[in-house]
Amino acid sequence: MNGEALVFYSPTDDPSAWRDALKTELPDLDFRVSSESGNNAEVRYALVWKPPAGFFAPYPNIKLVTNLGAGVDEIVGRNDLPDVPICRLSDQGMVQLMTSYVLFAVLRYARDMQEFERSTKRGKWEFIHPRPLAEIKVGVLGLGDLGAAAAIALANLGFAVSGWSRTQKRLANVNCVSGADALDGFLAANQILVSLLPLTEETRGILDKRRLALLPKGAKFINVSRGQIADEAALIEALRSRHIAEATLDVFHKEPLPEGHPLWALDNVLITPHLASNTTPRIAARDVAESIRRIRRGEEPLHRVDPKRGY
Amino acid sequence: MNGEALVFYSPTDDPSAWRDALKTELPDLDFRVSSESGNNAEVRYALVWKPPAGFFAPYPNIKLVTNLGAGVDEIVGRNDLPDVPICRLSDQGMVQLMTSYVLFAVLRYARDMQEFERSTKRGKWEFIHPRPLAEIKVGVLGLGDLGAAAAIALANLGFAVSGWSRTQKRLANVNCVSGADALDGFLAANQILVSLLPLTEETRGILDKRRLALLPKGAKFINVSRGQIADEAALIEALRSRHIAEATLDVFHKEPLPEGHPLWALDNVLITPHLASNTTPRIAARDVAESIRRIRRGEEPLHRVDPKRGY
Ligand SMILES: NC(=O)c1ccc[n+]([C@@H]2O[C@H](COP(=O)([O-])OP(=O)(O)OC[C@H]3O[C@@H](n4cnc5c(N)ncnc54)[C@H](OP(=O)(O)O)[C@@H]3O)[C@@H](O)[C@H]2O)c1
Ligand SMILES: NC(=O)c1ccc[n+]([C@@H]2O[C@H](COP(=O)([O-])OP(=O)(O)OC[C@H]3O[C@@H](n4cnc5c(N)ncnc54)[C@H](OP(=O)(O)O)[C@@H]3O)[C@@H](O)[C@H]2O)c1
Repeated sequence: MNGEALVFYSPTDDPSAWRDALKTELPDLDFRVSSESGNNAEVRYALVWKPPAGFFAPYPNIKLVTNLGAGVDEIVGRNDLPDVPICRLSDQGMVQLMTSYVLFAVLRYARDMQEFERSTKRGKWEFIHPRPLAEIKVGVLGLGDLGAAAAIALANLGFAVSGWSRTQKRLANVNCVSGADALDGFLAANQILVSLLPLTEETRGILDKRRLALLPKGAKFINVSRGQIADEAALIEALRSRHIAEATLDVFHKEPLPEGHPLWALDNVLITPHLASNTTPRIAARDVAESIRRIRRGEEPLHRVDPKRGY
Repeated sequence: MNGEALVFYSPTDDPSAWRDALKTELPDLDFRVSSESGNNAEVRYALVWKPPAGFFAPYPNIKLVTNLGAGVDEIVGRNDLPDVPICRLSDQGMVQLMTSYVLFAVLRYARDMQEFERSTKRGKWEFIHPRPLAEIKVGVLGLGDLGAAAAIALANLGFAVSGWSRTQKRLANVNCVSGADALDGFLAANQILVSLLPLTEETRGILDKRRLALLPKGAKFINVSRGQIADEAALIEALRSRHIAEATLDVFHKEPLPEGHPLWALDNVLITPHLASNTTPRIAARDVAESIRRIRRGEEPLHRVDPKRGY
């Protein structure tokens, strides 16, 4: 394995944390930040987040590209990718954080906490009778690594949970449906909707004006996947009319959400700065290293995505 | 069993829901609201919440008193109780609701959501790096029906959970400690503190000024048991100085919390009107009926409390 190198590129992630974590797993691997010089022919692996156009051209021997995150929408559509397996990150820490965010947002609405935030500010004791969780219908769009874990955690707490995916799934205590034809009925049936859909050609704008109107009046919407899943103007309109009573949004068409954007002005929206989940290099490096070991042995790497499918 | 009656008293609960629920379980039992007339000698069971002084005197044949809630602090200290088993309610619906409240409140702090509520109002995108849940220390005071369930649910999500009780407990993935001597160290070790202690002679004011000061600077406090567990003036002082950075309070010395009370004015407190959990008669009636059946057979009823111990 002598002479094998990995090239790292990210405008946001800390290379030294990744260098340390991968050194522990693969001491023989030469970890190079893309700005560092070296023999490009030795570069066999790329670990990248939003690399610039043409990034891969100088590395003729790349055998594996790993996307430094779960969402691959910024990488799979590129026309400058080498013809090698493309993988994504997925690890227990990422799943745990995403689950914690989704539980928080769903529990807040289930327990009327947004109303108590308001009555606390008004200084008024205003009782609202708690509803049994089993009577609260929560729908999760997307049942992948993150969506399935969130749906199961919600069901374990006692919510009435449904989930929607492309292919049919089976999850304990989750009412699973699949396919485009099932979407309209799914939206109409759930009081709290959580999006954990990847952004693909099929899901871009899937929550358009017509579909948002299918949600029951007073519905709550939680978007933790990608802003472009929803028509943002239609969402704002639905929130203004209170057809959608409340939303918790972690992702937006433009990020950071610009100052003065109309979403900031809505008093029924909780905005978080794209941090529903993230990756701990120490944990995620285990799978990155395992995929490299598998590629070395000629096996299939972990968490491979299908660029044609888009996720 | 002919001629057996149950007397019901509550200033807040709906008798008709309880009448219906108990009719299903025990069709032969005569359910009487205390204002209804009848042969008092037939009254064998009492289902009561805060009955007036002298309430039990007219019923010489009572064999079981069931408190219409989990907290028995209003009943166990009375000197007018018949010398019969005193029981409390405890059911899956109550446990589920309490767990949902505690998870909400802990997750809100663990995910910095109180900060994002503020930055949303300011219209500013302000990133805070998420912390792995395993690095967040949560302490639960009281590991009874409600405390143990909350502690286990928190541990299942990935938090570092400790619990404190009178007698030693063993709970999966919860660091259990017990006894008065362990309390000071317990308080100093936990960033988020949840009280699920019953109010007794031993726990009244247990979180006094000295003990609140033992919490790490910036601690979060969640009280869902009884307001009198804490010295309210000392708590307000700690919240003003930000030694305790945030609190979620469902219970207070005086309820409803009076308008103009200083707690309403603190911007680092979320106040809810004593509804962390409650009872669904349909579910809880099963155990009430089962205890009646057991008393009829001369057996020990469910959820019996020890008036001398106070819970
Ligand atoms: N906000 C944040 O901090 C954050 C952090 C991490 C990830 N994310 C976002 O979360 C997304 C989901 O992550 P993941 O790891 O769960 O993704 P994943 O494992 O790729 O799962 C995607 C799920 O969506 C379903 N799906 C895809 N296209 C569909 C379609 N056209 N119709 C119906 N269902 C469709 C898939 O169905 P099948 O199961 O049938 O394939 C699958 O269940 C990521 O793509 C990323 O955008 C956000
Ligand atoms: N806010 C609401 O809506 C709401 C709703 C329901 C209940 N509550 C409150 O929640 C309280 C707890 O309910 P629960 O059903 O869990 O009560 P529980 O089953 O009686 O459990 C009480 C727990 O507290 C511990 N404890 C009691 N005295 C102690 C002391 N001096 N030192 C250390 N630990 C002590 C007990 O220790 P051992 O295990 O060793 O006995 C036990 O673990 C109720 O008493 C009620 O006040 C509030």
